[in-house]
Amino acid sequence: MSKRPLAVILASGGMDSCVTAAIASQEFDLAFLHLNYGQRTEGREMRAFNAAADHFRAAHRLVVSMDHLSKIGGSSLTDAAFPVTKAVLHNTSVPTSYVPFRNANMLAVAVSWAEVLEAASIFVGAVQEDSSGYPDCRREFYDAFEKVIDVGTKPSTNIKISTPIIHLTKMEIVLRGVALGAPLHLTWSCYQNEEVACGVCDSCALRLRGFQLAGVPDPIPYAHRPVYA
Amino acid sequence: MSKRPLAVILASGGMDSCVTAAIASQEFDLAFLHLNYGQRTEGREMRAFNAAADHFRAAHRLVVSMDHLSKIGGSSLTDAAFPVTKAVLHNTSVPTSYVPFRNANMLAVAVSWAEVLEAASIFVGAVQEDSSGYPDCRREFYDAFEKVIDVGTKPSTNIKISTPIIHLTKMEIVLRGVALGAPLHLTWSCYQNEEVACGVCDSCALRLRGFQLAGVPDPIPYAHRPVYA
Repeated sequence: MSKRPLAVILASGGMDSCVTAAIASQEFDLAFLHLNYGQRTEGREMRAFNAAADHFRAAHRLVVSMDHLSKIGGSSLTDAAFPVTKAVLHNTSVPTSYVPFRNANMLAVAVSWAEVLEAASIFVGAVQEDSSGYPDCRREFYDAFEKVIDVGTKPSTNIKISTPIIHLTKMEIVLRGVALGAPLHLTWSCYQNEEVACGVCDSCALRLRGFQLAGVPDPIPYAHRPVYA
Repeated sequence: MSKRPLAVILASGGMDSCVTAAIASQEFDLAFLHLNYGQRTEGREMRAFNAAADHFRAAHRLVVSMDHLSKIGGSSLTDAAFPVTKAVLHNTSVPTSYVPFRNANMLAVAVSWAEVLEAASIFVGAVQEDSSGYPDCRREFYDAFEKVIDVGTKPSTNIKISTPIIHLTKMEIVLRGVALGAPLHLTWSCYQNEEVACGVCDSCALRLRGFQLAGVPDPIPYAHRPVYA
């Protein structure tokens, strides 16, 4: 039987959470948590999530539906009335794909589960580089949330939020993933399509540029592979 | 057309959120939010929620299912394997009815909705007196959560958490509700039953004692009315 401590990982099925899982698995047994929130590519993300959980031999697995986020709306990720905008990588305003307070909703679920499992940590693959516009991808946000955990859980509960790739560039994330043998071929990042990545949404553009700068071929299929580097 | 600002109220169907709504409605138009989380008395609470939303002429109404909290378990409120313990009013440990990090899950939903509605405030009927054991009923928790809202939402978003009855005793809440004409006869507090309140669970005991100390008859039916005052 394993004697390693347990960590909950917020696993979207994307590259960032896959590399984060690879980092976490060096020290922890992993409880894989996936949140569906009515995003367009929900089915494809679930496949990638399960493939990653299998790869890392997840000790626990939980899929939670947060339909209310699409009911509440306000994002191109969940609201069909919003077009998915093409990537503007140096944009400084909040992109249309921002889902209001999404990460706090996800963290709240993760903390409830972690408290019951007596996990020591929650791993999140947030990346500050992506947060030109996403306010809830910055370490400042996770620091504030840790304080909420401190005061809002049982006195015996002690859960940290680990964001090991938050200050990395996408290029560095690719290189770290390759170095750790993370299963990047199993991941999915596109916000638009489910079978062949579009190559032009925010998420595809950031990912492709990362692989291009790292000099590593991205192993998943793309409809277009614009040069972003 | 109304020109009053909008506030989201977390409305359980209980007495505390009803009195909080009465306070909030003096200044705000109200968006009524109810969270189902697999609690035993879910159906009865929904009836009380809708009755209160009707009474206060809610500008918006949203019911969200958070089934994951019962899936995650760990509480007598949502887990049939846990017995609902009889009230021990001067208990200092966390009661079995504590749902891990429940209020943070609820607040996260409320903030997502408030951000889309451009509401100025979220009203919560938390009461510190109840929190002999509930860590997420203390103002310290809401202060920490406000900081998360500050850093985790769009720069243009500015949402406060109002907890106007947090330092009141149940007796004072009853008296305030009566003074404001809050529809206390429409509320439901029992954790155990749906038609006739049990009178002996934590929530019934706190409520009954409040009415008894206030010298006001509680207008809802009870199977037992122990004297707690």
